Amino acid sequence: MRAPFCVMKMRTISWNPKSPSLQVIDQRLLPAEFKIIELHQPEEVAAAIHNMTVRGAPAIGVTAAFGLALAGMLSPAKTVKHLWVDLEAAATLLRSARPTAINLSWGLDRVLQTAHEAADNGLSAIRQRLVDEAQRMADDDIAINRSMGKHGAALIANGDTLIHHCNTGALATVDYGTALGVIRTAHEQGKEIHVLVDETRPRLQGARLTAWELDQYNIDHDIITDNAAGYFLSQGNINSVFVGADRIAANGDIANKIGTYMLALAANDNRVPFYCVAPTSTIDLSLQSGKQIPIEERDPSEVLNLQCNGKPIAPSNSTARNPAFDITSHTLVTAIITEAGISRPPYLQSLAKAVEKA
Amino acid sequence: MRAPFCVMKMRTISWNPKSPSLQVIDQRLLPAEFKIIELHQPEEVAAAIHNMTVRGAPAIGVTAAFGLALAGMLSPAKTVKHLWVDLEAAATLLRSARPTAINLSWGLDRVLQTAHEAADNGLSAIRQRLVDEAQRMADDDIAINRSMGKHGAALIANGDTLIHHCNTGALATVDYGTALGVIRTAHEQGKEIHVLVDETRPRLQGARLTAWELDQYNIDHDIITDNAAGYFLSQGNINSVFVGADRIAANGDIANKIGTYMLALAANDNRVPFYCVAPTSTIDLSLQSGKQIPIEERDPSEVLNLQCNGKPIAPSNSTARNPAFDITSHTLVTAIITEAGISRPPYLQSLAKAVEKA
Repeated sequence: MRAPFCVMKMRTISWNPKSPSLQVIDQRLLPAEFKIIELHQPEEVAAAIHNMTVRGAPAIGVTAAFGLALAGMLSPAKTVKHLWVDLEAAATLLRSARPTAINLSWGLDRVLQTAHEAADNGLSAIRQRLVDEAQRMADDDIAINRSMGKHGAALIANGDTLIHHCNTGALATVDYGTALGVIRTAHEQGKEIHVLVDETRPRLQGARLTAWELDQYNIDHDIITDNAAGYFLSQGNINSVFVGADRIAANGDIANKIGTYMLALAANDNRVPFYCVAPTSTIDLSLQSGKQIPIEERDPSEVLNLQCNGKPIAPSNSTARNPAFDITSHTLVTAIITEAGISRPPYLQSLAKAVEKA
Repeated sequence: MRAPFCVMKMRTISWNPKSPSLQVIDQRLLPAEFKIIELHQPEEVAAAIHNMTVRGAPAIGVTAAFGLALAGMLSPAKTVKHLWVDLEAAATLLRSARPTAINLSWGLDRVLQTAHEAADNGLSAIRQRLVDEAQRMADDDIAINRSMGKHGAALIANGDTLIHHCNTGALATVDYGTALGVIRTAHEQGKEIHVLVDETRPRLQGARLTAWELDQYNIDHDIITDNAAGYFLSQGNINSVFVGADRIAANGDIANKIGTYMLALAANDNRVPFYCVAPTSTIDLSLQSGKQIPIEERDPSEVLNLQCNGKPIAPSNSTARNPAFDITSHTLVTAIITEAGISRPPYLQSLAKAVEKA
């Protein structure tokens, strides 16, 4: 039985020029409920990023950019100087919503930069430029994903069984997806694929979002617990592993959803290729290694607030630790797929080239 | 706030000679509800093992032994020959309840063996011998756990932070525990310990049972998702990892709760000692390597039937794969602690010695 609605008919994030506002799919409610919510204030946008109404590195980059466009619209500034003050304040707020994904800062910086270029043309030109640039980023994101899809699909053969972590599909981007975009492209090319979907504790983006997307794309899949990936890899039936990224250091170390590191270890131990798919906007050449990437630790309630048969899974007085990301050493990564193509070790050279080319 | 009841005031499994019946804690209901149920028939015992009312390799070994004692009591046999037929049928049923833990077969074989030794003394002597031997196994289990606790506690220093997978405490045994028994002994020796408790998807024995036990023992702990263990290991703050086992091959390969293998890889990648604690009854010298250990795959509903904020975590039409165990190569295991002491590589020699000594 198919879900009665299809995410692919709309973008995960879309600008409504009439309100003005940003319409986003509330990803906290899926798969039980498909609900669009409207964000009118930059504060609402920052909260939506922080509480993971919107999540996924590319998606939050574009969402933050639109948040800044809203700040420009709503600013009562009568001078360009005052508008910059308001925009800088909104950028600071949005930038602090989540620390790990570099796309957030990247999106804000890009929109601010183009707004600065319009500074001589006055207030309304700046405001319009903010919206236009955010919209361009949204459009670009889809084109970039399609491009990564084509590059990466060459790595998938007919009949392959893949493991996928977290959600990197349409819901993690403006549309189409990064790692899941590669899998979709291979599927669209007629390749038969089976995907083992890591459920991805604690927020269960795999079980809740990726399984929901794959079902709509008619891609064959089974959900597995994250800790079962090693078992399947050791059985010799997995052809490759696909993940996204929240930030990639210059040396190819990858910050991605918690669990990625252990998955990469298990792939490596069984000589199964481990692929990371992310736009070049995720690459942070200013960082030499993954050790410099800040790791967000989120509220323990995300770990503890599950129910089994309607009953809590942990004693009521339990405490938890909840790091949201981990670092996977570049030594465990077979290739990194960006819109510029397939980058292979040594990453210090190949990633710099990809960024230059993109 | 402490739980209003304490598991330590009773054994996980206890024989009630009056009914006769086996009283067990229903571990499916914890931590929300502490309930004792009575099992009167071998069929009920087999079902309780299969559905994980009782779980943990040492616990199910003793439970199965009592199941056979019940079969002896209930058999209408008027001749020793007929009693053997009934006992063999019950043993076959109990043996098939779960395939991976060798303790199940070990418990049944041990009880059957001693019953055979009493064969010349007639029906009631055989029946009594079944009960007595099961009771002796229960008592032995606690003594063995205390002994492992003492051997293993030498590996834990004051101030250590440990990672623990699944539940290996009083609830996984007749009482006290294996890996958790070691941690308890170190705690009883006055060592300050912090335990990161793998929640252990899909059945959440860590979050549900281990956190509940540690709370009662006043041992400091935090629950983590299984996929976060690698992050904490890479941070350099973990001193050692402790797990139990369901079956250990002659070469030291370990079958244990799903996720153990990925945890061992992460410990190994960070040069953190990885310790396995199990009685010698868990060692299966008939198997050369872990590849020969059968891995149980359980119902997909165990993966899918979770709720988050009261809503299902997966689309209603999702499917799942659910292997309950995996194999950890002996190359990743720093030492195996049994009641005979601490066995180190090469395990082919040290485990054979441990079995001989025990």
